[in-house]
Amino acid sequence: MDLNADLGEGFGIWRLGDDEALLDLVTSANVACGFHAGDAMTMRRVCEIAASRGVTVGAQVAYRDLAGFGRRRIDYDISELRDEIIYQIAALDGFCRLYGEHVRYVKPHGALYHAAATDVWQASAVVAAISDYDRTLPVLCQPGSTLDSAATGEGVRTVFEGYADRGYLADGTLVPRGQPGAVLSNVDAVVARAFRLATAAEIEAHDGTIVSCAVESLCLHGDTPGAVELARRVRTALESAGVPLMSFVERPDPDPEG
Amino acid sequence: MDLNADLGEGFGIWRLGDDEALLDLVTSANVACGFHAGDAMTMRRVCEIAASRGVTVGAQVAYRDLAGFGRRRIDYDISELRDEIIYQIAALDGFCRLYGEHVRYVKPHGALYHAAATDVWQASAVVAAISDYDRTLPVLCQPGSTLDSAATGEGVRTVFEGYADRGYLADGTLVPRGQPGAVLSNVDAVVARAFRLATAAEIEAHDGTIVSCAVESLCLHGDTPGAVELARRVRTALESAGVPLMSFVERPDPDPEG
Amino acid sequence: MDLNADLGEGFGIWRLGDDEALLDLVTSANVACGFHAGDAMTMRRVCEIAASRGVTVGAQVAYRDLAGFGRRRIDYDISELRDEIIYQIAALDGFCRLYGEHVRYVKPHGALYHAAATDVWQASAVVAAISDYDRTLPVLCQPGSTLDSAATGEGVRTVFEGYADRGYLADGTLVPRGQPGAVLSNVDAVVARAFRLATAAEIEAHDGTIVSCAVESLCLHGDTPGAVELARRVRTALESAGVPLMSFVERPDPDPEG
Amino acid sequence: MDLNADLGEGFGIWRLGDDEALLDLVTSANVACGFHAGDAMTMRRVCEIAASRGVTVGAQVAYRDLAGFGRRRIDYDISELRDEIIYQIAALDGFCRLYGEHVRYVKPHGALYHAAATDVWQASAVVAAISDYDRTLPVLCQPGSTLDSAATGEGVRTVFEGYADRGYLADGTLVPRGQPGAVLSNVDAVVARAFRLATAAEIEAHDGTIVSCAVESLCLHGDTPGAVELARRVRTALESAGVPLMSFVERPDPDPEG
Repeated sequence: MDLNADLGEGFGIWRLGDDEALLDLVTSANVACGFHAGDAMTMRRVCEIAASRGVTVGAQVAYRDLAGFGRRRIDYDISELRDEIIYQIAALDGFCRLYGEHVRYVKPHGALYHAAATDVWQASAVVAAISDYDRTLPVLCQPGSTLDSAATGEGVRTVFEGYADRGYLADGTLVPRGQPGAVLSNVDAVVARAFRLATAAEIEAHDGTIVSCAVESLCLHGDTPGAVELARRVRTALESAGVPLMSFVERPDPDPEG
Repeated sequence: MDLNADLGEGFGIWRLGDDEALLDLVTSANVACGFHAGDAMTMRRVCEIAASRGVTVGAQVAYRDLAGFGRRRIDYDISELRDEIIYQIAALDGFCRLYGEHVRYVKPHGALYHAAATDVWQASAVVAAISDYDRTLPVLCQPGSTLDSAATGEGVRTVFEGYADRGYLADGTLVPRGQPGAVLSNVDAVVARAFRLATAAEIEAHDGTIVSCAVESLCLHGDTPGAVELARRVRTALESAGVPLMSFVERPDPDPEG
Repeated sequence: MDLNADLGEGFGIWRLGDDEALLDLVTSANVACGFHAGDAMTMRRVCEIAASRGVTVGAQVAYRDLAGFGRRRIDYDISELRDEIIYQIAALDGFCRLYGEHVRYVKPHGALYHAAATDVWQASAVVAAISDYDRTLPVLCQPGSTLDSAATGEGVRTVFEGYADRGYLADGTLVPRGQPGAVLSNVDAVVARAFRLATAAEIEAHDGTIVSCAVESLCLHGDTPGAVELARRVRTALESAGVPLMSFVERPDPDPEG
Repeated sequence: MDLNADLGEGFGIWRLGDDEALLDLVTSANVACGFHAGDAMTMRRVCEIAASRGVTVGAQVAYRDLAGFGRRRIDYDISELRDEIIYQIAALDGFCRLYGEHVRYVKPHGALYHAAATDVWQASAVVAAISDYDRTLPVLCQPGSTLDSAATGEGVRTVFEGYADRGYLADGTLVPRGQPGAVLSNVDAVVARAFRLATAAEIEAHDGTIVSCAVESLCLHGDTPGAVELARRVRTALESAGVPLMSFVERPDPDPEG
């Protein structure tokens, strides 16, 4: 099982989340690329630490919207969205390269994640960016999403992720934010759900239904109070149960010249 | 002799200069990377045309200052400047890669160009960015500048450029903008100066002194009225005289997989 | 009849349209406020010229989106949209104040204009901004739009505008851009339509239907080739026919201390 | 004695300092206006709370530099700097107006504060902005600074501020940041210095010299660990000693229509 979290989401003087602590807990780092958050020094630092700790780096690509943290949908021209995603992946790749590494996957952020889950045009922009830049990069998404089918149709690998701290509906989609049960705060319950996702590939939906949910990665949130402690609890529980924690991408031996 | 010009300096809806026309005249394109100008779609388009016409692409790196077009000095933290330059080079490299190409050189833009010519800290930031990202990339600069010595000291190749349409002082530096004789507008005179620079490695200074000026590239301005016509005149004059026009970097045969 | 046009839509080094020329032709200037276009020096200059020529200034409020020129819909939080509109009106008001004037009306720009025409939430954000800042400011909109009813419901005056160079459907709405007949380029036809709108309050729709269209203002486009000449032709035609051209807001005598 | 602090210095999702807590302690709020920090919703909220608690609002004007938090010097064109300052004051004034208030003073932020303290051009830009917008607004600055003399020369009132938690040199200027003794962290010592500044108009310099330092305001820092507690200690000490705490501007009775 892979553990992923959003990292490097500060900007300039402002910080968000505890990058250092999370880089000890995750196996995959979704690094912000400067469009919704992230700046060059932060990107470099996260890439450096990730490389030194064997954490895989992915490009957390987003709308160009620092003021909105990439969380509000923008009706982009599709070619422009595609090219802005390429720009972000490439910029992050430059910092990975300093430490003998590469961007290993792509995860859309915020409103782009949600738009690409249902909108065929925005999903196709994400897939086109990957196809153009490096079609071997997998994309992290939700099973059954439009992005899933768009990527698969183009021969781009999809990696499914689950959320132990989010409520699910019986159809396997998430309880929308703002509705009761959307976010779970009971630590023990979240840890138990993570364990069930990792070992049994299923999760209990809001109405008690047991939903099949085969995922290769668990998304840990980093910017909420108690986030690091929760991530630590999840990791410890999985490790204790003997669940192997590792990135969903095979990484070659580190470049000796890196 | 190489002919270079700044390209891709629009942003969003706004345009500056005639990229298409200049890409028929130059051998090297200094492509804006989004910090002082330039956006993802423009970067991609310029890289595509450049690749198709055999024009070499360099990263025109700049301060993060769209409102000031990178033309006003900013007292950057040096590490931040270095990392922002890496970010820009890498982003542009991503678009070159789509067309089987790479960024082949670096040219600082505007106030960074001027700061790096005299300020050892800013010069070192440019050189450190190149050293970190790809130390085989040459940097385009003025002979005798601080950037020249900083790069040479770190083993980074410098390529000198001259300006046929700018006035020179007897010491080989440019007449500062705003002073009489800083900019020459007589087309015939500019063409004659370009020819002399290219064939005799010298230029007549403001006071009549003949200054030795061995350069590998001539910088053509693209954003002034008549710029394209002037560039065409210069190119034609050099071609007519049998001066070979080519990039200052050797480019391998195009990547067949590009 | 009032003639309005978008002005001050450059940013930094980049220009769009011919502000100087249009300020001789319009009676109302929709001045960009820095969010989709416009910068402080441009805003000041346009306000100065407008004041000197007796042109009324309105705030052309927009999404925060320089890269997209405010032309792509953003799903804003409504409170944030309201407050960003207040910010823009107030900033422009500051420059009007330097010349003894005030912002006299509000016109949403681009995607906000279109969203507010159909989306009750975005329309309500525009109206709330006006209500909060100065409820005597009229809003320029299309007859029958959601913004029209939202403003009227809150006691904010609406001023309707027509487009002589856009095709209309039989229901009085515009032919969507991208469809045949959306934009008319025949100068004589546009001038004739402007005249009919101004004198008979009607316009011929795409299908030949005569549509009743009572408007207080005609919108002249400023950023297309031939825009200034077309605007001049429209103005001359209306003046020749004795149509009084004046702002739709009564302006008091200039502040003697301004 | 007035107590001032920088407020509203978050941006979008990012927060900095505890605005709510500080608004209970200060008599003057230097509100960020969106150029180095601050967004429309935050500006509005701070203005609302300030109005309700009787805290005076000033415009904390800055360079356009979110990425650098306005802390790095930019060699602005002076007219542009002037107009950008006007833009910021006016935007904030718009939010004050919603609560029956006005911007009551101006304080330059960060690198602009430092530049205006020594550079006659940047100081003159600040003063010109105030003269143009509202010449009755005082400017908060350091005694003996270039901004002090530039403002005085134009008839703009200057208000001097002192720093209880910063080291002073014997000439009354601050120990530069980065040097030993630049920042004092001993709470008791800082409180004692605040008391001495407020009651005896003097401060002990780094070398033991007693420096005369007549100030109308004390600047409290809000973004360091323990900042709120330190501010509370200072306020309590002054109150206990019977030092009247009040803004340096006379505020009329609240506008009954506000």
